[in-house]
Amino acid sequence: MNSANGKNAVVLLSGGLDSATVLASARRDGYRCHALSFDYGQRHSAELDAARRVAAQLGAAGHRVFTLDLGQFGGSALTDRSIEVPTEQDDGIPVTYVPARNTVFLSLALAWAEVLPAQDIFIGVNAVDYSGYPDCRPEFIDAFQKTARLATKTGVEGAAIQIHTPLVDLTKAEIIRLGDSLGVDYGITVSCYKADGQGKACGECDSCRLRRAGFEAAGVADATRYAIS
Amino acid sequence: MNSANGKNAVVLLSGGLDSATVLASARRDGYRCHALSFDYGQRHSAELDAARRVAAQLGAAGHRVFTLDLGQFGGSALTDRSIEVPTEQDDGIPVTYVPARNTVFLSLALAWAEVLPAQDIFIGVNAVDYSGYPDCRPEFIDAFQKTARLATKTGVEGAAIQIHTPLVDLTKAEIIRLGDSLGVDYGITVSCYKADGQGKACGECDSCRLRRAGFEAAGVADATRYAIS
Repeated sequence: MNSANGKNAVVLLSGGLDSATVLASARRDGYRCHALSFDYGQRHSAELDAARRVAAQLGAAGHRVFTLDLGQFGGSALTDRSIEVPTEQDDGIPVTYVPARNTVFLSLALAWAEVLPAQDIFIGVNAVDYSGYPDCRPEFIDAFQKTARLATKTGVEGAAIQIHTPLVDLTKAEIIRLGDSLGVDYGITVSCYKADGQGKACGECDSCRLRRAGFEAAGVADATRYAIS
Repeated sequence: MNSANGKNAVVLLSGGLDSATVLASARRDGYRCHALSFDYGQRHSAELDAARRVAAQLGAAGHRVFTLDLGQFGGSALTDRSIEVPTEQDDGIPVTYVPARNTVFLSLALAWAEVLPAQDIFIGVNAVDYSGYPDCRPEFIDAFQKTARLATKTGVEGAAIQIHTPLVDLTKAEIIRLGDSLGVDYGITVSCYKADGQGKACGECDSCRLRRAGFEAAGVADATRYAIS
């Protein structure tokens, strides 16, 4: 499966379960992975600490943390401390949605890919066990792919950048089984929206619920460090 | 022409000739304009000073300068001081191209538009007298428009955000005539890639050449402040 043979790729790495699995999968396929994380005004830095650990442990060629304060715009429970993170499931698009987040993140990944250069970008979006964010759907990724081809010098000159979404059709349990088979240590990842300073999970938010159910369905021991049990 | 009747719009404002004309045109159409500029690691701050003057003079409802250091990625003469800005025309896409710049800027405009909320975004791209950047072409804007609809809560809930490009089919001379008729004071705008600290133009770079020729063709007195004459 080493088809990529050392080709450069940009891998969006949040520090959570999904993006760690994506990085492991891109490494398995032979990519030289440049991990990209964002310090975007999220509530806690535990996620970025996790991203650093994951990048190192899974053998990324490099890891860059790009700072941009999406909290300047407000509008999300993840960046605006005046909005409460809910502990019960929402109907529709939840308040933890960060406006245009994946469009912004993919745009910056595209900028970095052009410079490296890299023709491949990996993102851990998922349209099965997900939180209802519009910018996680395959039709969004397809539209961005087309935009990326038209937007860039690389695209115009013939070698269009490819957006890879290896998790898009997997259930959370399938993602966990995949990562487990690739040796991902999920104990060092942080998915919780309300993780504490040590990266311990609340066990109650939407993200924690999806994650815990995934481990149960996968039959894999849940390595998550919980603040409560 | 006051069809917009106080509707919110996000207007990308660089401080140059084109975006000043776009702001004047959106104001003429009755939009309540929220100007958005980027401190993205460009060579000089004269452009941002110009954006502030233009926003105030043309009656923007507000003006936000969003900081993101695209220079972290390098790869452009506009953000990387080790690359020389050319004074002769390039073949193909010039070194002043900033990787994925308009994709990044439009993504952030989209984020702000969702929060305000605003259903309209204005950008001064132009496909006639332009510098050959791929992300100024109408097909790029069309692709981004589709991405924006799929990316956002607003789009999913039915009210797609509209990207307006009022200059796209105009020559530089037509843009200048339009702005002149709307009372734009081009003396306070800065287009030059190598403007000095006071915002005075070099008169030699690609952007200066296009601008000077535009005033000549429009038959409008060139209010540009040149460092040399």
